[in-house]
Amino acid sequence: MIVLDFVGVGLFAATGALSASRKQLDIIGFVFLAAVAGVGGGTIRDLILGVGIFWVLEPVYIVVCGGTAAVIYFTAHLLESRYRWLLWLDAVALAAYCVFGAYKGLLVTGSPVVAVVVGTLTGTLGGILRDALANEPSILLRREIYVTAALLGALAFVLSDAIGLPQPFSACAGFVVAIVIRGSALALGLPLPTYRSRPGREHGAIR
Amino acid sequence: MIVLDFVGVGLFAATGALSASRKQLDIIGFVFLAAVAGVGGGTIRDLILGVGIFWVLEPVYIVVCGGTAAVIYFTAHLLESRYRWLLWLDAVALAAYCVFGAYKGLLVTGSPVVAVVVGTLTGTLGGILRDALANEPSILLRREIYVTAALLGALAFVLSDAIGLPQPFSACAGFVVAIVIRGSALALGLPLPTYRSRPGREHGAIR
Amino acid sequence: MIVLDFVGVGLFAATGALSASRKQLDIIGFVFLAAVAGVGGGTIRDLILGVGIFWVLEPVYIVVCGGTAAVIYFTAHLLESRYRWLLWLDAVALAAYCVFGAYKGLLVTGSPVVAVVVGTLTGTLGGILRDALANEPSILLRREIYVTAALLGALAFVLSDAIGLPQPFSACAGFVVAIVIRGSALALGLPLPTYRSRPGREHGAIR
Repeated sequence: MIVLDFVGVGLFAATGALSASRKQLDIIGFVFLAAVAGVGGGTIRDLILGVGIFWVLEPVYIVVCGGTAAVIYFTAHLLESRYRWLLWLDAVALAAYCVFGAYKGLLVTGSPVVAVVVGTLTGTLGGILRDALANEPSILLRREIYVTAALLGALAFVLSDAIGLPQPFSACAGFVVAIVIRGSALALGLPLPTYRSRPGREHGAIR
Repeated sequence: MIVLDFVGVGLFAATGALSASRKQLDIIGFVFLAAVAGVGGGTIRDLILGVGIFWVLEPVYIVVCGGTAAVIYFTAHLLESRYRWLLWLDAVALAAYCVFGAYKGLLVTGSPVVAVVVGTLTGTLGGILRDALANEPSILLRREIYVTAALLGALAFVLSDAIGLPQPFSACAGFVVAIVIRGSALALGLPLPTYRSRPGREHGAIR
Repeated sequence: MIVLDFVGVGLFAATGALSASRKQLDIIGFVFLAAVAGVGGGTIRDLILGVGIFWVLEPVYIVVCGGTAAVIYFTAHLLESRYRWLLWLDAVALAAYCVFGAYKGLLVTGSPVVAVVVGTLTGTLGGILRDALANEPSILLRREIYVTAALLGALAFVLSDAIGLPQPFSACAGFVVAIVIRGSALALGLPLPTYRSRPGREHGAIR
């Protein structure tokens, strides 16, 4: 599980740094956004579960975010489309982190419902905070499936665990479900059937 | 008091789902925004008070949010103006939740000042988080009285309680104060006397 | 240290109230934004450190925010450029608060890495929350050095403390480092060397 944790933190940190590069921030801005994206979701997870914040107990996570930000600072100009990279790294990080969040939620509370909710939040809030701070359009409002992938990944892990599969298998199941759903949504531009009747009117148009 | 709690969660969840419908999200987007609006304010309340998060202890609140989101998903197209509904449901939820927040703050800390602050936050933060995530103009910046209604509702509850009224009466007092203030502000477009001298210049105009 | 704490809270509260005046909110809007800016960073600091929230334990901080908001409400029209004042008060508050945050982080966890991170967050998050709620362009994305000043101020305090300087000296060192860096950045419009290759394309331009 520790692998999933570091994959989640490292890749989310990379997406934060890519976002900083799109906004042309300085090196500390890279580190800041990398840290927010990298440990933001996990911080809220630990606050909700009422356990000590993981990076306060183990500051090496902060060092991982800082190192990732430095690497991206010096290499981002090599990428053709940083935003495409950001979306795909975010997809892998989401898959890793929704499973790890569900695992930790289950460990702490023992409730499958809470585990699924916490897994979903852990997988998605880092990206949502990143976009909010970097003033990007929120990934939540994009057409492709996003929260759904984290939710189904967390659900797959919790169900596999409930039917007694060994933990590495359950973790793989959850990871694969999430990455396949989010990946195909990205590759094919797949939306879920959305609420279609009509969009909200502009605010000027309401009284 | 438990009634106020469920009314607050359920109606805030409905406003989150209405917001999701305005943004044409998928069903999971409905559930996500409903959950953020429904339990967001209460989650921050419980974090600040240092008690266990209510929906981690009692996951049925999450089920309420999910159910509300599903109902709105299939009925929102029947509404003439979803944004008017959103504003009015938000008003009732605010009134219920500022009283419940003040009650819980008083119960945990015993300090009336903290109870009023926590009540105000509980009543308003769910709506503020919802608008931030859905990228709507923040309800906080609208002209009509908003935070004031939650603050006076919480204050009315704390004062009634302090002079020894029985709890159901104090709760009614706070609820009625908040709903009358917010409701008449909405119905009549009433602002408090605002700071009028001049708005901030555009950022381009400042050096 | 208690001086730094009150300076940080009071000045951040003043920046929140100035922001409210730019948005022409009512008096309660002033108090709300003053409270968010004044105690927001410290609240997240205390949540992360897992200690009781400072203003719940000592509600006088809330009174300070309310009083500051009232003063600004009646005097803001006297200022030539509220936004310049906001930036400079924010600079002093940031310097005071990054040192106090690092001090509290060191006291609670004993880890210098965590102390620097917590100091940086304490110094910057109040301003970031304020701008997010008031819908101002985030101070984080402005060209001048911001997070860096808080980080180096916290670092200077932690290092001075580590080499055994008496605490008032370490605190002064951190405060002076932060204020000189942020102040000269503001006065001279100094950016750190930023990531320059190219800004992110508009979202319409990506696939």
